[in-house]
Amino acid sequence: MSNTPIRVTIWNEFIHEREHAAVSAIYPDGIHAVLAAALKSHLGDAVAIRTATLDEPEHGLTENLLAETDVLTWWGHAAHERVADEIVDRVQARVLEGMGLLTLHSAHASKIFRRLMGTGCMLRWREAAERERLWIVCPGHPIVEGLKGECFELPHTEMYGEFFDIPAPDELIFVSWFEGGEVFRSGCTFRRGKGKVFYFRPGHETFPIYHEANVQRVIANAVRWAAPSGSAYFGEGRNIPQSLSPISSKHTVDESLHRAK
Amino acid sequence: MSNTPIRVTIWNEFIHEREHAAVSAIYPDGIHAVLAAALKSHLGDAVAIRTATLDEPEHGLTENLLAETDVLTWWGHAAHERVADEIVDRVQARVLEGMGLLTLHSAHASKIFRRLMGTGCMLRWREAAERERLWIVCPGHPIVEGLKGECFELPHTEMYGEFFDIPAPDELIFVSWFEGGEVFRSGCTFRRGKGKVFYFRPGHETFPIYHEANVQRVIANAVRWAAPSGSAYFGEGRNIPQSLSPISSKHTVDESLHRAK
Amino acid sequence: MSNTPIRVTIWNEFIHEREHAAVSAIYPDGIHAVLAAALKSHLGDAVAIRTATLDEPEHGLTENLLAETDVLTWWGHAAHERVADEIVDRVQARVLEGMGLLTLHSAHASKIFRRLMGTGCMLRWREAAERERLWIVCPGHPIVEGLKGECFELPHTEMYGEFFDIPAPDELIFVSWFEGGEVFRSGCTFRRGKGKVFYFRPGHETFPIYHEANVQRVIANAVRWAAPSGSAYFGEGRNIPQSLSPISSKHTVDESLHRAK
Amino acid sequence: MSNTPIRVTIWNEFIHEREHAAVSAIYPDGIHAVLAAALKSHLGDAVAIRTATLDEPEHGLTENLLAETDVLTWWGHAAHERVADEIVDRVQARVLEGMGLLTLHSAHASKIFRRLMGTGCMLRWREAAERERLWIVCPGHPIVEGLKGECFELPHTEMYGEFFDIPAPDELIFVSWFEGGEVFRSGCTFRRGKGKVFYFRPGHETFPIYHEANVQRVIANAVRWAAPSGSAYFGEGRNIPQSLSPISSKHTVDESLHRAK
Repeated sequence: MSNTPIRVTIWNEFIHEREHAAVSAIYPDGIHAVLAAALKSHLGDAVAIRTATLDEPEHGLTENLLAETDVLTWWGHAAHERVADEIVDRVQARVLEGMGLLTLHSAHASKIFRRLMGTGCMLRWREAAERERLWIVCPGHPIVEGLKGECFELPHTEMYGEFFDIPAPDELIFVSWFEGGEVFRSGCTFRRGKGKVFYFRPGHETFPIYHEANVQRVIANAVRWAAPSGSAYFGEGRNIPQSLSPISSKHTVDESLHRAK
Repeated sequence: MSNTPIRVTIWNEFIHEREHAAVSAIYPDGIHAVLAAALKSHLGDAVAIRTATLDEPEHGLTENLLAETDVLTWWGHAAHERVADEIVDRVQARVLEGMGLLTLHSAHASKIFRRLMGTGCMLRWREAAERERLWIVCPGHPIVEGLKGECFELPHTEMYGEFFDIPAPDELIFVSWFEGGEVFRSGCTFRRGKGKVFYFRPGHETFPIYHEANVQRVIANAVRWAAPSGSAYFGEGRNIPQSLSPISSKHTVDESLHRAK
Repeated sequence: MSNTPIRVTIWNEFIHEREHAAVSAIYPDGIHAVLAAALKSHLGDAVAIRTATLDEPEHGLTENLLAETDVLTWWGHAAHERVADEIVDRVQARVLEGMGLLTLHSAHASKIFRRLMGTGCMLRWREAAERERLWIVCPGHPIVEGLKGECFELPHTEMYGEFFDIPAPDELIFVSWFEGGEVFRSGCTFRRGKGKVFYFRPGHETFPIYHEANVQRVIANAVRWAAPSGSAYFGEGRNIPQSLSPISSKHTVDESLHRAK
Repeated sequence: MSNTPIRVTIWNEFIHEREHAAVSAIYPDGIHAVLAAALKSHLGDAVAIRTATLDEPEHGLTENLLAETDVLTWWGHAAHERVADEIVDRVQARVLEGMGLLTLHSAHASKIFRRLMGTGCMLRWREAAERERLWIVCPGHPIVEGLKGECFELPHTEMYGEFFDIPAPDELIFVSWFEGGEVFRSGCTFRRGKGKVFYFRPGHETFPIYHEANVQRVIANAVRWAAPSGSAYFGEGRNIPQSLSPISSKHTVDESLHRAK
């Protein structure tokens, strides 16, 4: 609604791209660079993009950076456990305050996603380069804006299959079909605190998924959707000794006990 | 459906009752004793009840006990931080496997509830002995079985008010009205893994809430509802190298990379 | 919980079975007879079963019968439009009052399902005898009680594919995979009024789907789940001139206007 | 996202304002005129506003007008039954296609809202000019954008109380507290087809609710939220004889039966 750009931080663990020729061939400057270019291409001046990676101090996710981030995208795979718990605490706190979070593909097993879900977030998988179709099950959602047709196809993907151990999503956007026989809830939204979370399945390090136009479009749409909105966040606990309306109930409250607490 | 009793473990931090005369007057043997008697009275042979408290070794929640627990009820207030993280891990794992969990009143701030929700779970509160009415907003739910009328009333309560920082519940069962001006989502269900969680607001250490017939009835209903049901739990991640249906897509998968992972 | 049997009425439009040899070979006494036998076999004395069909007076769904029905199952395909609107009104009213409703396969297009959903309830379909796998996405739900494995398979089915034009279900239980490339939300629960509705996709007139053990088991589980529960139904509008708590606000209400209304 | 204004049609039954001096004193040109001015004031060039009323031909809701409407707001109270069923059909079809619908206050009992919900939509009420507080329970939602504080207050209102006989809303935004003792789910979103529906409780003909700044702000926010978004609508049923992926299952399909259908 305003003309201020959405401040996006693209986080990448950035390991595979430096260690495997097959990955660097597809993502020579890292997955984050491809995502950054894609968002810029789709959203132009509506976004201001920064990137951060695991090996930077504080994984690049300083208090200042997060305070200035409207939407954070997360890609990790090989090193979830190397993400420091205090950084996970920090990201969680910002999500509750209203920062959007897009967790991509293998980020289903990231500490931050599992923290926000409260479940194990595991699933079935297979790397057989099989075909995937993502079917739209919520056609009125802004996240599917501009997609043509009832589904879109990815020719070669890693399979993720149910059971996907997440809480029931607030909104289910995509369901995937895989050639080898599985299905998956591939696009799921969750609200946590004042923040919006979108889990989006597509992605991989050796299949060029983030070069796909439809995948880029969905992520761009999700950035807009996840940008902070609403009222203030009221997450802090608070005693309200003075009631808003008069209380006529008569009962002796044991004040010594209250002091003890 | 079977004749095997539901194995209920009633957990209580059991501090206030030993430290404050005002509390021990209401709960001389602890809140857990009153809850145990209430469940026995309502459910009879349909339940087998045990209790556990904070000061026991492993807080009384040994691997064995939890393995033999179908539904765990949780009451804590003064010492949430004294619950060991490894016990919280253990309870969370059992919930995901299918154990029911009833979190009562101030258990909104317990480690286990916050862990399963992924949010801060804070709220507004006031101790002014005010009137509360719990309105039924899901009349077909087994948790409200046998309640008479559209709401029930508690004459003197501690107020809990919105904003209650939880994910949107899977089912909203009760909404509370408070004399002083607030409302609260007082009965909320959540699925996590294969387990069912019910948060139920009523309760307090100096108001005799757990002696109330309607409160007892709801907790008894919730024990039945939260008892394990369904298929097996499929929460573990698993590679499925052999597809269920044939894959015709042609693509070279870089096996060296897969080995690296 | 009680020993009173659940009173089930199995409704069948009963047309295909009388007109096509291929159908009567599979369902010689009608789909309703096979469903009745299956429920009796799975649930025994826990159910009391009646059947009703389109060509009976009032389609067999008299006021008396519905008043004595706890769970109604619905199968129709060729003659949705021949179901009288007043009978649809009657069934809807009973669902709101608490009667369970199981809508099977092509009942997605029945008047009663569309009435309760408020949407068109259309979908994609194909009759190519293809393989279907129903994946469990809610393993803790009583509707999947006793199923073995993460999915079950039907070797030859009519395909139903997304987009399925329903409101987001309250609970999503199954997602289907079809050999030809589609997915479908195959097991969906909805609450309407005090009643529970379960849409279950499997079924067909020329594939012997209702002879399948897993399909029978799910329908039997759903009967238990959909049986009436909860408090009374509070669906009627009602003026409450006398407030429960005192109102101190001062404002003149124009009584002439109220009378006019 | 684009610069094209959102085309809003404000529908009003427009009866009370012409028949009662007490109402025309507050809404001399009708409730629709006040809503139109409010939306213009809040949204400026972002909206293009038209109005329509019951007594116009086709209630003002011609095919052309609806085809050019992005968001329809609905106010009715005294004459729900005078709205022609074919116009209700038409509005429902447009909602499913993606048009937003805001149903205000007594529109809970309108034909169009009941049609889209599938339930009776009745509630409790009292006209005692009592105080209401609307508490925010979804602070990150765009519908509460710009509201100050955890709740807002209306000094004199008609009470609406639970049980409100609607399906569980997709998102619960506001819960109301009433001085006389009731609560109400006052802001509820629902998706139907590709369209978004928002039920918003505040409003009345003799209390000047639509002159309240916070009420106007919420309605303006809801117009933005309900504007069409997403992909195309896929609501029509469709046979897909040619599968997307090859089908290897072998089974003879009885073609004569298919032709019969």
